[in-house]
Amino acid sequence: MEEKIVLLAHGAGGKLTHNLIEEIFLKAFDNPYLSPLNDQAVFSSPGKELAFTTDSYVVNPIFFPGGDIGKLAVCGTINDLAVGGADPVYMSASFIIEEGMPMRELEKIVSSMARTSMECGVRIVTGDTKVVERGKGDKVFINTTGIGVVREGVRLSPSFIRPGDIVMVSGTIGDHGIAVLSERGGLNIPVESDCAPLHALTGEVLSKAGARVKAMRDPTRGGLATILNEFSESSGFCILIEEESIPVKDAVKGACELLGFDPLYLANEGKAVIVASSECASGLLFVMRNNPLGRSAAVIGRVIEGPKGKVVLETTVGNRRAVEKLSGEQLPRIC
Amino acid sequence: MEEKIVLLAHGAGGKLTHNLIEEIFLKAFDNPYLSPLNDQAVFSSPGKELAFTTDSYVVNPIFFPGGDIGKLAVCGTINDLAVGGADPVYMSASFIIEEGMPMRELEKIVSSMARTSMECGVRIVTGDTKVVERGKGDKVFINTTGIGVVREGVRLSPSFIRPGDIVMVSGTIGDHGIAVLSERGGLNIPVESDCAPLHALTGEVLSKAGARVKAMRDPTRGGLATILNEFSESSGFCILIEEESIPVKDAVKGACELLGFDPLYLANEGKAVIVASSECASGLLFVMRNNPLGRSAAVIGRVIEGPKGKVVLETTVGNRRAVEKLSGEQLPRIC
Repeated sequence: MEEKIVLLAHGAGGKLTHNLIEEIFLKAFDNPYLSPLNDQAVFSSPGKELAFTTDSYVVNPIFFPGGDIGKLAVCGTINDLAVGGADPVYMSASFIIEEGMPMRELEKIVSSMARTSMECGVRIVTGDTKVVERGKGDKVFINTTGIGVVREGVRLSPSFIRPGDIVMVSGTIGDHGIAVLSERGGLNIPVESDCAPLHALTGEVLSKAGARVKAMRDPTRGGLATILNEFSESSGFCILIEEESIPVKDAVKGACELLGFDPLYLANEGKAVIVASSECASGLLFVMRNNPLGRSAAVIGRVIEGPKGKVVLETTVGNRRAVEKLSGEQLPRIC
Repeated sequence: MEEKIVLLAHGAGGKLTHNLIEEIFLKAFDNPYLSPLNDQAVFSSPGKELAFTTDSYVVNPIFFPGGDIGKLAVCGTINDLAVGGADPVYMSASFIIEEGMPMRELEKIVSSMARTSMECGVRIVTGDTKVVERGKGDKVFINTTGIGVVREGVRLSPSFIRPGDIVMVSGTIGDHGIAVLSERGGLNIPVESDCAPLHALTGEVLSKAGARVKAMRDPTRGGLATILNEFSESSGFCILIEEESIPVKDAVKGACELLGFDPLYLANEGKAVIVASSECASGLLFVMRNNPLGRSAAVIGRVIEGPKGKVVLETTVGNRRAVEKLSGEQLPRIC
């Protein structure tokens, strides 16, 4: 039996587009906002203050240990809302498919999106599908755009960061970067992507520490190093981190040594970096470590007076070196 | 001097991504929601009932008579909100750029987006940029996702359509399809895309006729024929249209005859199809024709009892023929 593939006509807006939407998207995402198939979803505003975020996903390969581009697209947008202090509610999903993509791969990705969004109580309420000719895309690119409700009283901004604050990560870093790299290169490194939705964990963090949480961010492209640099630039203070406190899996460490990567720059897709008042340290560690996604949470450093706008790493042997933002291309198409 | 191009590293999330965002996107879209460069925009909910819509734009070529992919991406999403009875307020913009794209082309597109959104009072408040390798994309794909406020008391749905209702279009059909086709093929057909934001026009229509407007839709991919089929399927009634009432520019007619296209299936990017109670006909024509985007507005047909779920065209010579949904691919990558 010949394999069903996506044709250019599936993107033409006519009968085949209609069939694709009915048979694949509507079946998977079914909900009362999407099912009228209007060009827009209409709903009562879910809250007073809203967060709004968008990301396009071009990860290569589209299937990797621990996830796929669909799960990634849902988690990534949920996480951008979560680290803004918002509970995710609605999401859009837009697909740019390369002609010839096997239909069963598309179905697998869409069902992965449906499963993840349902588990998170997020509804995919509107969407779009385009098809481009062979060689003008790469299997599938997905955009997800999310709307969340900002928790009452929550105000997060790197500009609130002050000397004395602590810097935490919710778990091991570099897993996603190494998992995708390994799959891409056929390296069989035993690491799975950490791709996961963080809204429950960040919600618990905010419930515990409230306004003493200054800023949160998920260290995706550019990794932990880039986020910390952004925090230090926006706050005008120095961030001092300790190498030995930063949780990194042995397999990730090993892969980095072998391949010449630095885990500080590797992408993560299920980790939060949190800056909070120092008195919250033990309470937040307790809360995070009780969440399955935060078992390896750690305090990795603190904010100090100077030098301003710098991130400094204290290495395991006691030296100090500056940690710059990612420059150049470490791993293209990691998300 | 060597031409500046987009590099893979511009999508890596590090320094070059930061520079690209600062120098191109932030400069063009500058507003207080976007400028903190958080991973999410936060704002007070702009209204009680919201409309939410997404579209990815893959039009080829990216510049065409009457517009470019940037203007199209802003207008298209505004129009999907507008035909839902909503006033557009916020928008996200996400770019998937092919490595090697000339930076000045990207700048031109971004400034076109900035101009169009500003003219419409819509703020681009959050965004994303990815870069894919040469041959894995095609210059640039843009996703825009919009949030609008549904006008109070407005309820639009093809399910409200009843026999006796009139069917109107806000102007000539097929302009966008022919303009893109002409540019793609170097045909020099003297037609410009109708790419334009419709929210002012649809707002005037709703102010004039209120709940007597049953449904609105913008006939993009699949054209007028496909929208009318969707209307007749959703309502369960027949739609009868008169060929001689449908406004089509002579140049579009000529191009269609020459090239074997049917204007009923060509994409439009600045036209609304409106179904309303028959007593509104003259009032709505007056209102639309007073709007620069509705000068050629016309009543093109009416809803009748049977045959159910069918669209029937009365030709200029008095014959009747069924108008099906677009089947197959007429023009790929038209939007």
